[in-house]
Amino acid sequence: MPSTNASRKGQEKPREIVDAAEDYAKERYGISSMIQSQEKPDRVLVRVKDLTVQKADDVVWVRARVHTSRAKGKQCFLVLRQQQFNVQALVAVGDHASKQMVKFAANINKESIIDVEGVVRKVNQKIGSCTQQDVELHVQKIYVISLAEPRLPLQLDDAIRPEVEGEEDGRATVNQDTRLDNRVIDLRTSTSQAIFRLQSGICHLFRETLINKGFVEIQTPKIISAASEGGANVFTVSYFKNNAYLAQSPQLYKQMCFCADFEKVFCIGPVFRAEDSNTHRHLTEFVGLDIEMAFNYHYHEVVEEIADTLVQIFKGLQERFQTEIQTVSKQFPCEPFKFLEPTLRLEYCEALAMLREAGVEMDDEEDLSTPNEKLLGRLVKEKYDTDFYVLDKYPLAVRPFYTMPDPRNPKQSNSYDMFMRGEEILSGAQRIHDPQLLTERALHHGIDLEKIKAYIDSFRFGAPPHAGGGIGLERVTMLFLGLHNVRQTSMFPRDPKRLTP
Amino acid sequence: MPSTNASRKGQEKPREIVDAAEDYAKERYGISSMIQSQEKPDRVLVRVKDLTVQKADDVVWVRARVHTSRAKGKQCFLVLRQQQFNVQALVAVGDHASKQMVKFAANINKESIIDVEGVVRKVNQKIGSCTQQDVELHVQKIYVISLAEPRLPLQLDDAIRPEVEGEEDGRATVNQDTRLDNRVIDLRTSTSQAIFRLQSGICHLFRETLINKGFVEIQTPKIISAASEGGANVFTVSYFKNNAYLAQSPQLYKQMCFCADFEKVFCIGPVFRAEDSNTHRHLTEFVGLDIEMAFNYHYHEVVEEIADTLVQIFKGLQERFQTEIQTVSKQFPCEPFKFLEPTLRLEYCEALAMLREAGVEMDDEEDLSTPNEKLLGRLVKEKYDTDFYVLDKYPLAVRPFYTMPDPRNPKQSNSYDMFMRGEEILSGAQRIHDPQLLTERALHHGIDLEKIKAYIDSFRFGAPPHAGGGIGLERVTMLFLGLHNVRQTSMFPRDPKRLTP
Repeated sequence: MPSTNASRKGQEKPREIVDAAEDYAKERYGISSMIQSQEKPDRVLVRVKDLTVQKADDVVWVRARVHTSRAKGKQCFLVLRQQQFNVQALVAVGDHASKQMVKFAANINKESIIDVEGVVRKVNQKIGSCTQQDVELHVQKIYVISLAEPRLPLQLDDAIRPEVEGEEDGRATVNQDTRLDNRVIDLRTSTSQAIFRLQSGICHLFRETLINKGFVEIQTPKIISAASEGGANVFTVSYFKNNAYLAQSPQLYKQMCFCADFEKVFCIGPVFRAEDSNTHRHLTEFVGLDIEMAFNYHYHEVVEEIADTLVQIFKGLQERFQTEIQTVSKQFPCEPFKFLEPTLRLEYCEALAMLREAGVEMDDEEDLSTPNEKLLGRLVKEKYDTDFYVLDKYPLAVRPFYTMPDPRNPKQSNSYDMFMRGEEILSGAQRIHDPQLLTERALHHGIDLEKIKAYIDSFRFGAPPHAGGGIGLERVTMLFLGLHNVRQTSMFPRDPKRLTP
Repeated sequence: MPSTNASRKGQEKPREIVDAAEDYAKERYGISSMIQSQEKPDRVLVRVKDLTVQKADDVVWVRARVHTSRAKGKQCFLVLRQQQFNVQALVAVGDHASKQMVKFAANINKESIIDVEGVVRKVNQKIGSCTQQDVELHVQKIYVISLAEPRLPLQLDDAIRPEVEGEEDGRATVNQDTRLDNRVIDLRTSTSQAIFRLQSGICHLFRETLINKGFVEIQTPKIISAASEGGANVFTVSYFKNNAYLAQSPQLYKQMCFCADFEKVFCIGPVFRAEDSNTHRHLTEFVGLDIEMAFNYHYHEVVEEIADTLVQIFKGLQERFQTEIQTVSKQFPCEPFKFLEPTLRLEYCEALAMLREAGVEMDDEEDLSTPNEKLLGRLVKEKYDTDFYVLDKYPLAVRPFYTMPDPRNPKQSNSYDMFMRGEEILSGAQRIHDPQLLTERALHHGIDLEKIKAYIDSFRFGAPPHAGGGIGLERVTMLFLGLHNVRQTSMFPRDPKRLTP
């Protein structure tokens, strides 16, 4: 690699380096020129997580960030970080390193990316502060690949400190807006790395389970011609000379797929809600994991399939992402997520009875408020010892127009929500597949029939009974990990007040 | 199932049914009341594709669409369709069916969904017109589950007829606008079923390959605060009291992920282009399969990884989706897709030389026009026998501001496109990871630095060299199958003139 020990930008030149004549190590360190694919060196970079006693006495190259550095006489200790793994490195004056080189190493700004060549040495005493506890790296060469600016907008150690510790001894923690304003730094913490690796796992498990169940993945348009779900809370888009809207869910398109014989479909994609809600669980753009399925005779066939899919996700996470779960719980301690098999299904009237017994006053046709949802979650946990359950048979009055009424009780509907730790993560229903009933219900809700003509027409040429639901990815991630704000589980969250970064 | 042989809506009552006294089969047919999950009958529905000689003489229940019906004396032959599979069913006057029941069956509108109970009978002569050629179903009960309106906006048989047959003998084919206006019917054809099942497979193979390679799936926002990629061709969204924009690619967010140590990421999501292009290959909303990856020393590490991912997709499709490929080729004949391992990589100057030899006049720094891309595809196919190749080292002048210049030739860049059957399916590059060079290049392109401040700032705290690219899902589907319009491979396409359904 072409490199130079003259600083390329920003960093002050330590005086010793200027007097290069007496520096016997001057070729062994410096700031590398920008990697522009000038060459393809035959050099293997070893992963930090692979630095173990098996590699003892090997000479290896490693690329990592400078997590911390600490100079002490003729030595400089660095902690090198690569994603969630880190290792201690030592630059010490000797055959390979001059005192100038040690000083250079000590002056590298934190978070810079460096290439080091070093010998892997077994240590006698475990290094408690690193993930690689049994070895350290004795550095022979050190080059800066990408230099970080000296002042970080937030410190990674502060960003992973549990809030309760900060409160106890006054050490710094980082507030949410600072985190989000500097998301690129905040995402480097072991907690963020774990959250988003686990989130990737949720998507993977969701699809893996559904593809094994014979589902087909579909792609539905996000720009739509009419505010089809009632008109409220919809974002308007300038579409050439007209207006269009951003889809509030893939609902109508999933249903059209049914009418087109794709009996079991799923999709993962953005969902847009122009709702001025500034709460811990609302975003204006979130990721929907959507399922829709034709059934034979009863929508419970679908409820069981969806609940089982979630159970497979929970199991998969607990099996494959235990490290990530543990990492997050260090900063945000919480009880492991509990669920039953088969999933508990409660009817709305049963839930009402439980709430009333706990002193809540509610009408039969009233929707659950957020505090009542949470209270119900606690009551269900006490009684059934589960953090996950289905609430079935919602009042018809509180559901969208396309919800199938319950044939036995005109005030109820064939609809359901699913809850994790007392918060709603899925809303779903049997959908009306009969164009005549659909028209009646749309009129009842005051919806302009012209705007949903294509939707209603799609049921005119034979439509199977079907049901489905939409899951909020960020909420599932948040609630599975016991976090308290959906912004922690959205990489670049969008809310009424935040559009950047 | 509650059912009635009085028609519930629309269909005229055949006179015979009214005189029910003489109808000994009157309980065996009719129009079922709407399925509202009234009950959970203990009835297994057999899949049409499972109706084989192994089931001979079994009594089974099947739910399917009436694909065609043909009455002939005391018999009515139905073809029952379930997705891409179909079977012949016979209703004949006898012990189980009265003449009224045969007439009822004959009068069911095409595309209606019915439940039939019947005996599976082996046939002596193969039924060439059905996928289940060795058996037919002798119907004992028949109920309409969802009645189709009598006039279909298009006939499925016309919709799967190869255009050349239509031209030869004047039989009807269906034009594209009619198809798209009635997409719910058009998607029922065996061709459409095959296209979108294969498309689901592309997504699955893409992710399967990348997850095995250690990539993490990310979710990037679609609503962004500034038209970050230059400002042209971007849709504006009303965002509460301000304006926002729809992301033209996840590019900038993928890069921020790198700066946040997610070394290998991918995402699948909608991409928006407010481009008034009315061509066979442009959509205003399409699905991007995006990859981004940190590399060690040379961006070819990434080119090889992306090309291999595409090769894994091609192989997986040819192994797992042969039926779908064959089905589509019945209507749209084409040569099987060819590719090399490892993938052919040509430099732009080599391509220019090939084109010039073929008589094309082009400057060194000129971009490829669509006709020249296609011509080049033919020349490459002739010379190397591959439908897939990488074109590397594009002129810097024709690439976006964040493209890394080639250090050896200031007019070239470390950028590449990938082609299938002579059409571009991926555009990618090494990205500039140095904030100073990025600022210079943005200024050179006349981009307002204020609008991309968050983007540039994300490189200030150490950024690894990285490269990536974005693949158009609809184009890959189209070109793999040798189709000629990207609207065939978008379920609900969006272009400057189409926003519905």
